[in-house]
Amino acid sequence: MEIRCIVKMGGAAITCKNELERINEENLDAVSSQLRQAMIPCSASVKTVGMDWSKRPGISEDVSSTLDDFCGDHTLNLLSNKFVVVHGAGSFGHFQASKSGVHKGGLDRPLVKAGFVATRISVTTLNLKIVRALAREGIPSIGMSPFACGWSTSKRNIASADLSMVAKAIESGFVPVLHGDAVFDEVQGCTILSGDVIIRHLAVLLKPEYVVFLTDVLGVYDCPPTVPDSVLLREIAVDEGGNWSVVKPTLRNMNKQVEITVAAHDTTGGMAAKISEAAMIAKHGIDVYIVKAATNHSLRALSGDLRGNIPDDWLGTIVRLTR
Amino acid sequence: MEIRCIVKMGGAAITCKNELERINEENLDAVSSQLRQAMIPCSASVKTVGMDWSKRPGISEDVSSTLDDFCGDHTLNLLSNKFVVVHGAGSFGHFQASKSGVHKGGLDRPLVKAGFVATRISVTTLNLKIVRALAREGIPSIGMSPFACGWSTSKRNIASADLSMVAKAIESGFVPVLHGDAVFDEVQGCTILSGDVIIRHLAVLLKPEYVVFLTDVLGVYDCPPTVPDSVLLREIAVDEGGNWSVVKPTLRNMNKQVEITVAAHDTTGGMAAKISEAAMIAKHGIDVYIVKAATNHSLRALSGDLRGNIPDDWLGTIVRLTR
Repeated sequence: MEIRCIVKMGGAAITCKNELERINEENLDAVSSQLRQAMIPCSASVKTVGMDWSKRPGISEDVSSTLDDFCGDHTLNLLSNKFVVVHGAGSFGHFQASKSGVHKGGLDRPLVKAGFVATRISVTTLNLKIVRALAREGIPSIGMSPFACGWSTSKRNIASADLSMVAKAIESGFVPVLHGDAVFDEVQGCTILSGDVIIRHLAVLLKPEYVVFLTDVLGVYDCPPTVPDSVLLREIAVDEGGNWSVVKPTLRNMNKQVEITVAAHDTTGGMAAKISEAAMIAKHGIDVYIVKAATNHSLRALSGDLRGNIPDDWLGTIVRLTR
Repeated sequence: MEIRCIVKMGGAAITCKNELERINEENLDAVSSQLRQAMIPCSASVKTVGMDWSKRPGISEDVSSTLDDFCGDHTLNLLSNKFVVVHGAGSFGHFQASKSGVHKGGLDRPLVKAGFVATRISVTTLNLKIVRALAREGIPSIGMSPFACGWSTSKRNIASADLSMVAKAIESGFVPVLHGDAVFDEVQGCTILSGDVIIRHLAVLLKPEYVVFLTDVLGVYDCPPTVPDSVLLREIAVDEGGNWSVVKPTLRNMNKQVEITVAAHDTTGGMAAKISEAAMIAKHGIDVYIVKAATNHSLRALSGDLRGNIPDDWLGTIVRLTR
């Protein structure tokens, strides 16, 4: 089965990170539209036939008029490129998980058990919103919670992750939408399985042509992007052992310092973890693009325009195996 | 593993059947409260500590005050009786499924594929609302979609239904909440797996002490309950072959006519299908109670008060194996 692309919708890109459970609607709509263009390239010129026929609070839409569009049965463009979507939690789930310590385990403690329930409610709420946004664009999206799929961890590493339903959904022409989730852990009882760990696991097993991380900044920088003179790392080379180094731009005074700087400033594990995760994927020969969501750069990355040479005017970070 | 009870929340009992995607909030709250009393019998006297820490549109609740209640770690009453909840679709999902013909299969047709996506969005929306209502009552509920769990059918009968995640969730002290869902079918591509079929499958494999069907009428009648002089069937006896007959009340003029009458008036398959489904469960020695949701009768049924003799003042239908 030829998978074109696995996309990570970063929590920071699609939610308002500082406000509890608030979607960044504008970004989510733009990302959904770009995904439609990447999955169904010929859809740009025709009317989108939505697949979300449910009520939306505050929005009155006549569902039956949507259905009229299906009469000819030819208005829907079939998916030409197979995609899998994984999203993070952003302002959904983090609050519930951190207040209760779900990631540290201990399901016999009432607070942890309650936090497990509360976290799953929050992340599945976000999942449903994303599935609906994609469906409104005509993307046949199917929400699949790692917990319900039976995924579990051992000491926070994936212990069991049955991909058969994901594969079956892809084969049948759907786009599985997975997410960071609270799951059972064989050793500590429970933990949080992050979207990044899911991505790596899916990428190694499904071997897509490329993986795209959609974030809220242009890519990976040598120091926090808010710092003046911070430099966007354009290309990172990875060897088969997973070691990585910055190839472009040529960093004069920095050398190996970059890795340390990146790791040091990033207490949340965001960007340093992202490069390491990306390198773990890239070492299998799968290109990884880290790019700002809802920009022309993300559209080009999603559409596969970067598979050959990287255009000079493309902004983002490419993590790629040196052959 | 000793499962106390599997509960079917009928779509008609928890949604407003004639209005698209409208929850019957009053009933759902009452049912959730009764389920708490049945699962956590000592909880009646103490304050409920909710497990839904997510925002609710139009309702401002301070989540952090909920969390303060957890400080002592002893305020939460642990589940003493193991339950599984399955719900129907009611006014969620039916519209999307019937408009597109998902139950008839044919995933290669764009309308069916879109309907599959739209149906899953609608039923998972309902599932999330029910999981949240239960969590607000302090029930550690976990939404588990049959589709994501990998359940599938062959010619509309269950072909594959891995119960390991359901069992694991129960063992860990959670209450799995399943639902009627759109699933893959080996022969026709896809279909609708109904809540009633799920209940039967779960009952046979998990062998609960009893099964409760919560509906919007008192139980099963000899003819539609809106007809004057319709008689509530109080007790139905089932033999090991699954054949059933009305034991109480003693029906003078009706004899075998009852079965035919029930089947004939019920074009939606509701009540006739319900007796047949109940008989398929009861023949395994599991009592089935069909009762009106959110009444004192449903509370007694859920609490297991009917396991011995049936009180004369209890109203509902019992379907039970004749030994």
